[in-house]
Amino acid sequence: MSNESTQHWVLTLSCPDRPGIVHAVTGVLAQHNGNITESQQFGDPLTNTFFMRVEVATTTDANRISVALAPVAEEFDMTWRLDAAGRPVRTIIMVSKAAHCLNDLLFRQRAGDIPIEVAAVVANHMDLKPLADFYEVPFIYLPVSKETKTEAERELVRLVNDLDVELVVLARYMQILSDELCSELSGRVINIHHSFLPSFKGAKPYHQAHARGVKLIGATSHYVTGDLDEGPIIEQDVERVDHGRSAEELVTLGQDVERRVLARAVRWHAEHRVLLNGQRTVVFK
Amino acid sequence: MSNESTQHWVLTLSCPDRPGIVHAVTGVLAQHNGNITESQQFGDPLTNTFFMRVEVATTTDANRISVALAPVAEEFDMTWRLDAAGRPVRTIIMVSKAAHCLNDLLFRQRAGDIPIEVAAVVANHMDLKPLADFYEVPFIYLPVSKETKTEAERELVRLVNDLDVELVVLARYMQILSDELCSELSGRVINIHHSFLPSFKGAKPYHQAHARGVKLIGATSHYVTGDLDEGPIIEQDVERVDHGRSAEELVTLGQDVERRVLARAVRWHAEHRVLLNGQRTVVFK
Amino acid sequence: MSNESTQHWVLTLSCPDRPGIVHAVTGVLAQHNGNITESQQFGDPLTNTFFMRVEVATTTDANRISVALAPVAEEFDMTWRLDAAGRPVRTIIMVSKAAHCLNDLLFRQRAGDIPIEVAAVVANHMDLKPLADFYEVPFIYLPVSKETKTEAERELVRLVNDLDVELVVLARYMQILSDELCSELSGRVINIHHSFLPSFKGAKPYHQAHARGVKLIGATSHYVTGDLDEGPIIEQDVERVDHGRSAEELVTLGQDVERRVLARAVRWHAEHRVLLNGQRTVVFK
Amino acid sequence: MSNESTQHWVLTLSCPDRPGIVHAVTGVLAQHNGNITESQQFGDPLTNTFFMRVEVATTTDANRISVALAPVAEEFDMTWRLDAAGRPVRTIIMVSKAAHCLNDLLFRQRAGDIPIEVAAVVANHMDLKPLADFYEVPFIYLPVSKETKTEAERELVRLVNDLDVELVVLARYMQILSDELCSELSGRVINIHHSFLPSFKGAKPYHQAHARGVKLIGATSHYVTGDLDEGPIIEQDVERVDHGRSAEELVTLGQDVERRVLARAVRWHAEHRVLLNGQRTVVFK
Repeated sequence: MSNESTQHWVLTLSCPDRPGIVHAVTGVLAQHNGNITESQQFGDPLTNTFFMRVEVATTTDANRISVALAPVAEEFDMTWRLDAAGRPVRTIIMVSKAAHCLNDLLFRQRAGDIPIEVAAVVANHMDLKPLADFYEVPFIYLPVSKETKTEAERELVRLVNDLDVELVVLARYMQILSDELCSELSGRVINIHHSFLPSFKGAKPYHQAHARGVKLIGATSHYVTGDLDEGPIIEQDVERVDHGRSAEELVTLGQDVERRVLARAVRWHAEHRVLLNGQRTVVFK
Repeated sequence: MSNESTQHWVLTLSCPDRPGIVHAVTGVLAQHNGNITESQQFGDPLTNTFFMRVEVATTTDANRISVALAPVAEEFDMTWRLDAAGRPVRTIIMVSKAAHCLNDLLFRQRAGDIPIEVAAVVANHMDLKPLADFYEVPFIYLPVSKETKTEAERELVRLVNDLDVELVVLARYMQILSDELCSELSGRVINIHHSFLPSFKGAKPYHQAHARGVKLIGATSHYVTGDLDEGPIIEQDVERVDHGRSAEELVTLGQDVERRVLARAVRWHAEHRVLLNGQRTVVFK
Repeated sequence: MSNESTQHWVLTLSCPDRPGIVHAVTGVLAQHNGNITESQQFGDPLTNTFFMRVEVATTTDANRISVALAPVAEEFDMTWRLDAAGRPVRTIIMVSKAAHCLNDLLFRQRAGDIPIEVAAVVANHMDLKPLADFYEVPFIYLPVSKETKTEAERELVRLVNDLDVELVVLARYMQILSDELCSELSGRVINIHHSFLPSFKGAKPYHQAHARGVKLIGATSHYVTGDLDEGPIIEQDVERVDHGRSAEELVTLGQDVERRVLARAVRWHAEHRVLLNGQRTVVFK
Repeated sequence: MSNESTQHWVLTLSCPDRPGIVHAVTGVLAQHNGNITESQQFGDPLTNTFFMRVEVATTTDANRISVALAPVAEEFDMTWRLDAAGRPVRTIIMVSKAAHCLNDLLFRQRAGDIPIEVAAVVANHMDLKPLADFYEVPFIYLPVSKETKTEAERELVRLVNDLDVELVVLARYMQILSDELCSELSGRVINIHHSFLPSFKGAKPYHQAHARGVKLIGATSHYVTGDLDEGPIIEQDVERVDHGRSAEELVTLGQDVERRVLARAVRWHAEHRVLLNGQRTVVFK
């Protein structure tokens, strides 16, 4: 059953690098009247891995293309995925008290800049409920204490499953996830760290930065792994500061960088532009 | 006659956009054991033109690949070019008195950062001869006055032809080329303009910028056309300034941006990363 | 009548430049137990004008300091102002349909990053009323047509007067103010223009930028004068783009720069960091 | 004995912060017909230290001003210095094999952008002698091995003393200075580290950065202390990179940042714009 109207698909794949991959993949697309509108690729000589992202416009439905791609994927030992371009990714945003990242993500989502669908805002404090209400997004209060942490994480996993959630964004969420949770949601949790990693890991990075007298402060968005602040980096940016800024002013200035960096990382992830390459990422902007 | 050792080639092409281009091109490369090491493409919906740049490693010689590509190029109505990756492009650098761009280009050329071969430095003043001498590059003094301008340009064309020159770089050369020369060398002359075009065209752009009270100054590298400061832009960058800077200080600060922007444009051009798209450029960085 | 607790004041001044100004001003402050916590100055050799901004902590009330400063100001022919540091400036924000700048200003105002008090959001469309409501700011609908423009501007002036408004921010307000209004509110109206001025004045600057093929897009915040897009520039910034971006994508990317640049300009103005120097500004960041 | 022509002086000072400092200092300057052309100050609330830099134009000679400043300096317990503005600072540049920083510093020095006088280039390899020769700067070959290190450092100190050297610049000099030498030349040795400190201290920072998958690389200029890569930071900057860059390409890209950052740090130091504030710096740009 084919759909006669043109649709846009995103194909992402990675596999061991060898000659002929692009020709084989584009052959399948050409046979199904696919017109490639965007294509990027990268062969990593260190890991001998090939990465590719293709956007294609076609009147053929995804099912047929998938069936035709399967033997090619098999032949080249590919990890691959075909998705509708622009399909909103089901997302949970986790927050504590700081509003700037949540405000930014919800604003951009509504403006159509980030293809996500916010299934819920999950918070360990009540402060940001009015903001979630304004954007008509379900707000779920999930307090966390030493005693309740395990249960709270189980509840989060239940939410992820029940709400068909594909992505969890830690938008200045001030709790550290357990190793078990990190493993379970591996590659699906994005965090914003308020420093230019690997500088100033851990707590109060702006105060560390101030004490060290750096001339630029930064923020880093990365996938969360069990190894705190060591997950694969998706995006980073910096802002210039000078000797006159107090640690508290760095905190305020840094919020601009944090929200910008997190918004980019979430958008690129939701557009299937970020592929994992061991401890690093390939980002097809 | 095949060359058994692996060689790297750069294929650049543009043609009317339609399905099947990538598949056809990569098919030819795959048949000749070509391993694609870098590939970028862009389809411009406004002009319905497709642009592509591929780097390929292969043991097949260029001749065979060219012969095999010819019918594909014919079929898709391509403008195309196959060149050895990293082959130094024969270049003339034209200067007047300002040293910063010439110094930068010669330093980077020697360091191996820019794949050019400097056939000559052509200058309408003697000031920079010692610098050319230090880098052991022929220095040709070609003074220009109102009366001698036509003859000087003819001499330049002779030099371009006699020295097999592919690229002319105006490295703060303070003469305006005639329309005839611009046409004759179209797409082969790169200029650095010391403003963020299209702001502050014409003379003394830093003084114009100072008078306007801008908070960033910039530089623009572009192909030269008969339409002064209106040629296709290759690269731009800016530097922050504040109210405390005099016009003269902007001149000095701007030199850093100028040389950086020009060096990038020349490197990208020499690596066949810049393709013309009407009055604009496609830059595959 | 003195206030025994420490208060912070901001003194800004400009006058013809000559020796002794700083000594005279700091003398008055020292006599009143003023501790200077921040001080910046600039002497413009082109206009022979001296500019100064001083923050001072003191237990003396503003009245006494003003009385003591008056003869010094007289002697040096100063334009000057003494204000409580951090006092919220009474502000009207004018908007049409685009939400990004308004959302950013209201968020930052609430977060305490910009010392303004939003007396009203004045809009020629109803679209942004919910946003104003969320931040509990009065929303005033003031539609403008060719016929009603004069009356609408009169109404705006009435609002400025009735609400004790010191600053009017055009946050992507899509109407051009009349020369009369510009004159009447001179130095009190800040606009955000969505290009890197003086490039791309007038309508649809991103489309102009796209057609020209620029490699950076920008935004400019400036005081509004009768001369459209020619008022004194307060702040500018840019974002890198490449050939792959459509004009529509530039519009979206540009919104980030616009809101950042406008927020900085409004904060600096509200903190009395911006002084007019003819057609240019002095910004004491 | 007074000099009737106008001269420009730079006064830098630091002292415990308390009211009246600026008034007292500017009083002395005013009494000597000093016209302040640039002035910056900073009171650090953490260390309760006040920092000031003043440029003053006057017909009074430095001696008289110094005599008049002495009691004020005594009263406020100042560390202070009065120097002729723009006086070239006697400098040794130390190098190994990498040319980019040396080339940049010598070019800028000759162009008049950095007020230094290069007393000698001291190198532990012969590679850069031609470059020093071109700029007509004495080249001193001072090889270093495990056995000769102590003697080589003694020779360096002799050179510093004999040549009246005020500043030693490590322009990618690949030897670690001993603690004794660091102490002896404390505050007079500037290094460029090829990472965004405190990230990637130690050897091969670009390779560390590549392995970590960072999205920006940087460089840091700092005063050298016995604590390797931990000295007070003067300047930092970054450059964007992506997944496609090899560690070797980062090395090349980074050279642009390194030379830019080092040049700024050396210029600011030579213009007496950098004051030490414990482990941090105050930079009056």
